[in-house]
Amino acid sequence: MAQRVKLSTIGEALGLSTATVSLALRDSPLVADVTRERIKEAARELGYIYNRRAASLRTSRSGIVGVCVHDVMNPFYGEILKSIESELDRHRQTFILCNHHDDLSKQRSFTDTLLQLGADGAILSPALGTPAADIRLAEENGLPVILIARTIEGAGVEGFRGDDAYGMGLAVDHLVSLGHRSIAMIGGTRATSTGREREAGYRAGLERGGIAFRPEWRIEGPRDRHSGFASASEFLALPERPTAIVCFSDLVALGVMYGLARGGVRPGIDVAVVGYDDIEEAEIAMPPLTTVSNGQSEVGERSASALLQRLQGVEAAERTTLIEPQLRVRQSCGAPLPR
Amino acid sequence: MAQRVKLSTIGEALGLSTATVSLALRDSPLVADVTRERIKEAARELGYIYNRRAASLRTSRSGIVGVCVHDVMNPFYGEILKSIESELDRHRQTFILCNHHDDLSKQRSFTDTLLQLGADGAILSPALGTPAADIRLAEENGLPVILIARTIEGAGVEGFRGDDAYGMGLAVDHLVSLGHRSIAMIGGTRATSTGREREAGYRAGLERGGIAFRPEWRIEGPRDRHSGFASASEFLALPERPTAIVCFSDLVALGVMYGLARGGVRPGIDVAVVGYDDIEEAEIAMPPLTTVSNGQSEVGERSASALLQRLQGVEAAERTTLIEPQLRVRQSCGAPLPR
Repeated sequence: MAQRVKLSTIGEALGLSTATVSLALRDSPLVADVTRERIKEAARELGYIYNRRAASLRTSRSGIVGVCVHDVMNPFYGEILKSIESELDRHRQTFILCNHHDDLSKQRSFTDTLLQLGADGAILSPALGTPAADIRLAEENGLPVILIARTIEGAGVEGFRGDDAYGMGLAVDHLVSLGHRSIAMIGGTRATSTGREREAGYRAGLERGGIAFRPEWRIEGPRDRHSGFASASEFLALPERPTAIVCFSDLVALGVMYGLARGGVRPGIDVAVVGYDDIEEAEIAMPPLTTVSNGQSEVGERSASALLQRLQGVEAAERTTLIEPQLRVRQSCGAPLPR
Repeated sequence: MAQRVKLSTIGEALGLSTATVSLALRDSPLVADVTRERIKEAARELGYIYNRRAASLRTSRSGIVGVCVHDVMNPFYGEILKSIESELDRHRQTFILCNHHDDLSKQRSFTDTLLQLGADGAILSPALGTPAADIRLAEENGLPVILIARTIEGAGVEGFRGDDAYGMGLAVDHLVSLGHRSIAMIGGTRATSTGREREAGYRAGLERGGIAFRPEWRIEGPRDRHSGFASASEFLALPERPTAIVCFSDLVALGVMYGLARGGVRPGIDVAVVGYDDIEEAEIAMPPLTTVSNGQSEVGERSASALLQRLQGVEAAERTTLIEPQLRVRQSCGAPLPR
């Protein structure tokens, strides 16, 4: 029933032309903001539903951008999403989300949905094992893709991520400068570019400090708070226990700190702990967490801008921009508590 | 170019009829799972893109369900989403997410998008101040809506949420049974049904314990970890400091515990703290958090089932189902630490 409300009905109710109403409902910049809002309000009251499905067959833009990441609940991605969202909001792009949980078939199903809906583009933190061909297929079918947080060799699209090897090196250098000579690394997997880069940074930092890498001090796997917590008992059971730990992420570090405390070992006093990402929780944690800022808001903002540029017709840049990470020294590696 | 691959091309490649290929790509139950996957794999390899936009103008189902909540990063919603997702996955519905951040215009824009895309339905934790008319408008335009976590008077649709008043009562009763006579409540706002119900449960619990409500011990507002952390200094500055705190949510409680510890007060030893939700972090927190299980996975599963029933033609039930909350006693209110 509501479908039968016509543009002319709205125009008549407001004393405006049908053309103005039509432009406003399509978010044309030719209509002033105030007028557009008034028209949309009236359209809503009258029960008018703009049929974007039909319209998208006629026009080239749907106004929809898809964002797909490993897990939207992870605050690291949450903080990236927040800045993508505010950038897209300013350009009146609708933003839909999907978790791929590192399941390639889920990622493909979402990409297919975006293609089928005629979405304008996708911002993707690609699932483990994503072949470059998947990205090229999307691009060839008119879906511009921007990669965040992870890289895919040969995908040939623009990407933004932190310089993970450099950042993890900063963490290790800092611990070495405090006098630590036995430093474990907990978490991450070599199946992601992030995991490989951060481990490379850890090893390079040890090497700069003249410290040999010891495989038993590299506890692979944990990528969230719970598995970080569980790995603390593995760490505590080491025959020769290191005096410091660098963690794959803040979530892992926060879980490790819970686990150390549960085992009667005080993080920041008995063992130094460093995280990675500088999520918002890091500075209020107990003890506050020394970590490496990973430029989440810059990654979000720049990836959204790059996508919007593509939609303006700017050609794809086939490069990955590395955001420079920064060390944030707090109490989990032994500094005194702020008062 | 890829658009030019025809159904018959895929059929020929696999030795199957065009009709079978067509059914498989539309997820028809008439095609065996194994065959469907083989067809989809071949379609992908050949670069075939099923045009759902055109198809959705012809058929009545798009296979898309929208889910919109205050903040997908909040683990309480995250855990609901996880169970919605697994239920929808089993029925091959694609699932798109949106944060409304309690901004009515964002929620309306997402609902409009769902209507415009011809989505099959929406699961909504409604934004503060959502008028019942918004829900009715969506329903009248063919978008079935199921409400979760929050209620809207007069919306006339099915909803699922925890019994918040009863649950908060359990928390207060437990503290009273431990001998506490001065109990603060931190967090939540009367602008949401959840906030009102939990405060009502707090007041009812005090009354059952023969304890007078004291406005200065009701610290309203905090709904996340950071604002919980900030409110701890307000609590610590109270002239007569209560011996126990019930919090609006686990996130608030975890922030309060960080804040108490920062102020040199030991949660679980100097002050008892109880949360609400029983998010996964509660049991590994330091100290492990006593809380009220809010039935997230049941809310998620039942809301998704209810929506799928609607899609099967079952008529809307105009009722809110209250899930029974359960107290989980851990160390933050004084129990000994598990070993």
